Amino acid sequence: MIVGKIVGSVVATRKNENLIGSKFLIVEPMESMKSKSRLVAIDNVGAGIGEIVLVAQGSAARIGCNLADSPIDAAIVGIIDDAIGLE
Amino acid sequence: MIVGKIVGSVVATRKNENLIGSKFLIVEPMESMKSKSRLVAIDNVGAGIGEIVLVAQGSAARIGCNLADSPIDAAIVGIIDDAIGLE
Amino acid sequence: MIVGKIVGSVVATRKNENLIGSKFLIVEPMESMKSKSRLVAIDNVGAGIGEIVLVAQGSAARIGCNLADSPIDAAIVGIIDDAIGLE
Amino acid sequence: MIVGKIVGSVVATRKNENLIGSKFLIVEPMESMKSKSRLVAIDNVGAGIGEIVLVAQGSAARIGCNLADSPIDAAIVGIIDDAIGLE
Amino acid sequence: MIVGKIVGSVVATRKNENLIGSKFLIVEPMESMKSKSRLVAIDNVGAGIGEIVLVAQGSAARIGCNLADSPIDAAIVGIIDDAIGLE
Repeated sequence: MIVGKIVGSVVATRKNENLIGSKFLIVEPMESMKSKSRLVAIDNVGAGIGEIVLVAQGSAARIGCNLADSPIDAAIVGIIDDAIGLE
Repeated sequence: MIVGKIVGSVVATRKNENLIGSKFLIVEPMESMKSKSRLVAIDNVGAGIGEIVLVAQGSAARIGCNLADSPIDAAIVGIIDDAIGLE
Repeated sequence: MIVGKIVGSVVATRKNENLIGSKFLIVEPMESMKSKSRLVAIDNVGAGIGEIVLVAQGSAARIGCNLADSPIDAAIVGIIDDAIGLE
Repeated sequence: MIVGKIVGSVVATRKNENLIGSKFLIVEPMESMKSKSRLVAIDNVGAGIGEIVLVAQGSAARIGCNLADSPIDAAIVGIIDDAIGLE
Repeated sequence: MIVGKIVGSVVATRKNENLIGSKFLIVEPMESMKSKSRLVAIDNVGAGIGEIVLVAQGSAARIGCNLADSPIDAAIVGIIDDAIGLE
């Protein structure tokens, strides 16, 4: 998983029907984290802009969020409230 | 997921039979998005050249687009019509 | 998926038994494509050196090519014969 | 898999319910390893800060740690106590 | 898949029980191959230090090596004995 900050959101009216009801947030990974560039993740925990969150990628995002049949490859699965060694 | 712009398409007459009927579009990820280089994604939403789209990668592309048995690792699953924080 | 050119092949006499019968080709992704470095992909469409091909990666390669039980993470699934926007 | 050093941890009170009970550690990959940036991995072996560990990523993390339904894409699956050629 | 050279190994006494019996080798990808950094892969073909091998990554490593329940994301699945275009 990576830790990042929510910096925006996107809206798509025309989309795959399994995406209806999902909120799409733009996450900027922390400087030290695996990926340096932004990604779009669905929100699984009620997160909002400015929050520091935990993001799961790959099949874990679909299956771990009860969205096994949806075309989703990243999900916000936790809101970070404490950390050691997170730069 | 990532957001990108459709910049082209490819045609393959000789191909895996599970790919018959799929449209292959070339997507250029947005500057800030996860991947800097182009990729080929099948079209799941009727997108066209010049549109800004949402792309799912990995098993999510196959399974989320009802193409579980096809050799597809990226799919256009939404057309972006509004965004905050998308540079 | 990515588009690349077949630039070589590898042979392995001692290998996982589920790989017996597969042809292993070296693919050089197109300049603009997602990955800048070469990869080895099995051939699913009868491709040869010098051809421009479509490559699927991850579980899509195994499952989409009826090789679900094989240790294969990339497959050549189409031969490109026309393209727009492919640099 | 990659080898890295545990350099920190994160806590998330509000999270996906399948993550309850997992410990989230921050791993810094070894200089020579595949990824240069840090990632967050759940702990499957009782590892602690400062230890050199083996990390599995992707569906292997979920399925190999009996957490098939959890949104987890990286797990610490071994503590390294000897190595040849690990720089 | 990628081609690389075995340059070392790691030992972990404390590990996930599904990893018992697996040998962990450090692979240095060939200069031209997809990944520039080293990774750890289990040995599926009896490979040794100094050999040039074929490595499968992702779910292909687990499933293709009859280790579907193990936290393994890379496996050595062939020993290269001939090649064209491998730099």
